[in-house]
Amino acid sequence: MSNVSEDILKKVKGWPGYVDAKYGFRNHWYPVMFSKDIAEGEVKKIKLLGEPLLVKRIDGKLHCIKDRCLHRGVPLSEKLDCMTKDTITCWYHAWTYKWETGELCDIMTNPSSAQIGRHKLKVYPVEEAKNCVFIFLGDGEPHPLAHDTPPEFLDDGLEILGIAREIKSNWRLGVENGFDPSHIYIHKDAILVQGNDLVLPLGFAPGEDRSKQTKVIADDSEGGRKGVYDLIGDASVPVFEGTIDGELVREGNYGSTLVANNISIWLPGVLKVNPWPNPDMMQFEWYVPVDENTHIYFQTLGKKCETEEEIKAYEHSFDHKWKKMALMGFNDDDIWAREAMVDFYADDKGWVNEILFEPDEAIVEWRKLADKHNKGIQTLENIKG
Amino acid sequence: MSNVSEDILKKVKGWPGYVDAKYGFRNHWYPVMFSKDIAEGEVKKIKLLGEPLLVKRIDGKLHCIKDRCLHRGVPLSEKLDCMTKDTITCWYHAWTYKWETGELCDIMTNPSSAQIGRHKLKVYPVEEAKNCVFIFLGDGEPHPLAHDTPPEFLDDGLEILGIAREIKSNWRLGVENGFDPSHIYIHKDAILVQGNDLVLPLGFAPGEDRSKQTKVIADDSEGGRKGVYDLIGDASVPVFEGTIDGELVREGNYGSTLVANNISIWLPGVLKVNPWPNPDMMQFEWYVPVDENTHIYFQTLGKKCETEEEIKAYEHSFDHKWKKMALMGFNDDDIWAREAMVDFYADDKGWVNEILFEPDEAIVEWRKLADKHNKGIQTLENIKG
Amino acid sequence: MSNVSEDILKKVKGWPGYVDAKYGFRNHWYPVMFSKDIAEGEVKKIKLLGEPLLVKRIDGKLHCIKDRCLHRGVPLSEKLDCMTKDTITCWYHAWTYKWETGELCDIMTNPSSAQIGRHKLKVYPVEEAKNCVFIFLGDGEPHPLAHDTPPEFLDDGLEILGIAREIKSNWRLGVENGFDPSHIYIHKDAILVQGNDLVLPLGFAPGEDRSKQTKVIADDSEGGRKGVYDLIGDASVPVFEGTIDGELVREGNYGSTLVANNISIWLPGVLKVNPWPNPDMMQFEWYVPVDENTHIYFQTLGKKCETEEEIKAYEHSFDHKWKKMALMGFNDDDIWAREAMVDFYADDKGWVNEILFEPDEAIVEWRKLADKHNKGIQTLENIKG
Repeated sequence: MSNVSEDILKKVKGWPGYVDAKYGFRNHWYPVMFSKDIAEGEVKKIKLLGEPLLVKRIDGKLHCIKDRCLHRGVPLSEKLDCMTKDTITCWYHAWTYKWETGELCDIMTNPSSAQIGRHKLKVYPVEEAKNCVFIFLGDGEPHPLAHDTPPEFLDDGLEILGIAREIKSNWRLGVENGFDPSHIYIHKDAILVQGNDLVLPLGFAPGEDRSKQTKVIADDSEGGRKGVYDLIGDASVPVFEGTIDGELVREGNYGSTLVANNISIWLPGVLKVNPWPNPDMMQFEWYVPVDENTHIYFQTLGKKCETEEEIKAYEHSFDHKWKKMALMGFNDDDIWAREAMVDFYADDKGWVNEILFEPDEAIVEWRKLADKHNKGIQTLENIKG
Repeated sequence: MSNVSEDILKKVKGWPGYVDAKYGFRNHWYPVMFSKDIAEGEVKKIKLLGEPLLVKRIDGKLHCIKDRCLHRGVPLSEKLDCMTKDTITCWYHAWTYKWETGELCDIMTNPSSAQIGRHKLKVYPVEEAKNCVFIFLGDGEPHPLAHDTPPEFLDDGLEILGIAREIKSNWRLGVENGFDPSHIYIHKDAILVQGNDLVLPLGFAPGEDRSKQTKVIADDSEGGRKGVYDLIGDASVPVFEGTIDGELVREGNYGSTLVANNISIWLPGVLKVNPWPNPDMMQFEWYVPVDENTHIYFQTLGKKCETEEEIKAYEHSFDHKWKKMALMGFNDDDIWAREAMVDFYADDKGWVNEILFEPDEAIVEWRKLADKHNKGIQTLENIKG
Repeated sequence: MSNVSEDILKKVKGWPGYVDAKYGFRNHWYPVMFSKDIAEGEVKKIKLLGEPLLVKRIDGKLHCIKDRCLHRGVPLSEKLDCMTKDTITCWYHAWTYKWETGELCDIMTNPSSAQIGRHKLKVYPVEEAKNCVFIFLGDGEPHPLAHDTPPEFLDDGLEILGIAREIKSNWRLGVENGFDPSHIYIHKDAILVQGNDLVLPLGFAPGEDRSKQTKVIADDSEGGRKGVYDLIGDASVPVFEGTIDGELVREGNYGSTLVANNISIWLPGVLKVNPWPNPDMMQFEWYVPVDENTHIYFQTLGKKCETEEEIKAYEHSFDHKWKKMALMGFNDDDIWAREAMVDFYADDKGWVNEILFEPDEAIVEWRKLADKHNKGIQTLENIKG
């Protein structure tokens, strides 16, 4: 059964699967926290695509299980009980599971139960890369993490730092705000623009040939990744003079620092802006589905560093400058823009009633790509079952 | 598609359209604020029959548009931006609309867009009369405001003052509380009754001839208005002695001041009580649908004034006496009575399960009139589309 | 129409009626308060199986009516008005009802109304026993209270004291937590266990013969009662050593005081534990349905008392010891266990997705008994009609 009414899906010609994916795309890798946020032996509780999960670090390695006892469905996290290093015991009837396999290995209230060894709690693959913790939310053998990260993200020597926070909008409104070529209009008064003297037009006037506005990557030519490049900067005239009825009412920022030459979006929903917010840095940001109404805005900045000193210096500038001015100050405007779209798309009718314009070609190509190349649509049955 | 289940509409023989009108009647004039509450150049945000609206005063004249950008559906009011006097610009992608026509006249992020000039934001007719701002919530050319106001309201020389507040009940529970002949019972201890020495029985004992209880106005004999007069005061015996098992337990107020001789209700839901609360005044009050669960209680008092001195004196007595004692003190009891009906009618089943009695004939005639003569039932499609 | 989707009811082979009974079982007696909590002339408002009720004590005897005026459906309790001892008058239009019969005996706003004497407000039988107030929530002549109370509860000389509180879970999660043989695991660290030196294993390892685990009483052999005895203490090996992967990780409490030899559950949802929490006491506790998401946890302790001095001494120990240590301290853990099950069973899918194990046989027999012998399933039609 679909998540969205058939009536609406029928009206969305080009990307019904995308409209149906309100809980996210299954069988993909998602970042959920930073490595430093989970110490040896520690257990963290998260929610991903509607599913309650627990993550534990055992002998350095992370393990992830579903946070719901098979017996009566209670959250194991209601009262965490790890009596041995490798197991977790439900506080209610002492059903005990292996962190690695999910196997029901013991039931302390009835050690002779026939259920022991017959059931497995769902476990999820976990990988750590670039100081981030990734979970494969899906079934079967996962594809490589590289398929679900943008080019360069995993490159040697690229130091990644970031922050993460919960936003009250569907994850797709996050993607579409981030990859939207003309949303730059809302950033026109950002301190970062003035402070860093960035070139920032009000928008772009694309030419007639739509095919020049984007480049779609879907044939594994970039190592299994599927994504869309926004070429509007090349294929259109940047707009620096805003006029109403012929009267000039607002100008863009002419600036001297050219950034954001290269913007792309990748399955399962991660944006790359290069360079940004400085000519020697780039931003990668994920919009991770938590549930229908919430996503984690997982923002990272990468910089090439060759020595420990360079890393230290980068960490210092991240903490004291870029985190506040770029990831927060600048991107905070994006957050309320996403939240302002919530009502219109809340009952799924916005996907039918919206009226797009030329620069939205980038969003259109992303929707088509996501509709065609996602590995599965998360359903309520997945979440509840 | 109807707003209420077919199962319920079938059971309501005489007024299914009225039961279906939980969001109000479309294509009617409604008061939404007082003229003094919106200054030159000011923009106000309101909601009417479920639709988010913006009103602006430009060169003295009021204009009203839908508060939802055509592009991605965000509220323009999220961050108001009126860069020229006659236009409003969406904060997100700079789609710019004319206040007067709703025309999409410019898009500053893409000044060459083919969408410019091709779309119009919905605009709504606005009129000011008697210090009140009226909006025609509907489509096409509006009928005259006089058709949707009670007799005398628009008369020359009648000075109108009032207040407005949001009540947490459906608008029909407001109408039916106000026009209910026997609801006067809840006012028996009001300070206004004692303070103004009003005649106020506990209720009325109507005779057998139901047709004498009301007079229905539906043939344009009152200038296009459709309404019902409550004649119970003439056609029945007022009850001043309340008895239980034959024992006298409560008396009405015998008083010396006769008021409320003339009570009537008019489409789209406005009550007139004349005279009230004093022999030289009359009350007009609207129950304006905001959404399914809320209405604006728009209360006004009118008094004939011939000179500026009389107006000043009336304003003084309104501010210092009638506002507090009548519109608030007395009518506050009506507010909680409406709210107390909410649960029973919340799932629409109250319209089937209620048990009416003889004095409710006035309410029955109002329901029939509203069912037959309304100009359209507001739907979710109107609201979302 | 059922309360739960047909799709789910079909999948629950053994007890669909039980799964459907989210609002409780109709036509049964339920305790709602203690006798001392309602004085002569006092009126109390409660909700039972979704129905709003009022209870009044008149000349010592309790009467119960529905708290909803027949006319426009408002709660009589919104502004209580009892003008004579035997009647209640609606604050809105003065419809007046007899507490004893529910008869509409007068309408003070229209004393000649044809409706007078033609309608009755729903009344509910009330009985007081053992300091508790019981209401028969149903239709027609009630069966004896004894049929809905556990054995011994009504016995002469048994003194009953207790407390009641509202819990945010469905009533069945209360029953199934209380009667669950292996839920004792959550009590392993309770102060009562140490303080009273109780024997308390971690759980039980039942043998292969399931029929020995319970005894079902359904043929009136216990005076009309229908219930299930939990015999797991006799038919299984108590587990005192909890092991994971063969390693001892936790022990039960060996103790010297043997309690809880005799545990049984009775329709419509009342648990008896004997003896408990002391060898000379027993606990009776009800999980009274308030609405779909709430139940009253009505906890009582009984003790045989032969003299007034014994009663006084029991009251003193109840107030200063057992109330805090047993009904609160010990049972507080049960409350959050019930609440932790809420999400899983909230959409009714938990009844299909749960995986039971051997000790749950007691719960299985309770479900079958309740499905077969209940006197009616409460529906939304009952509640709203």
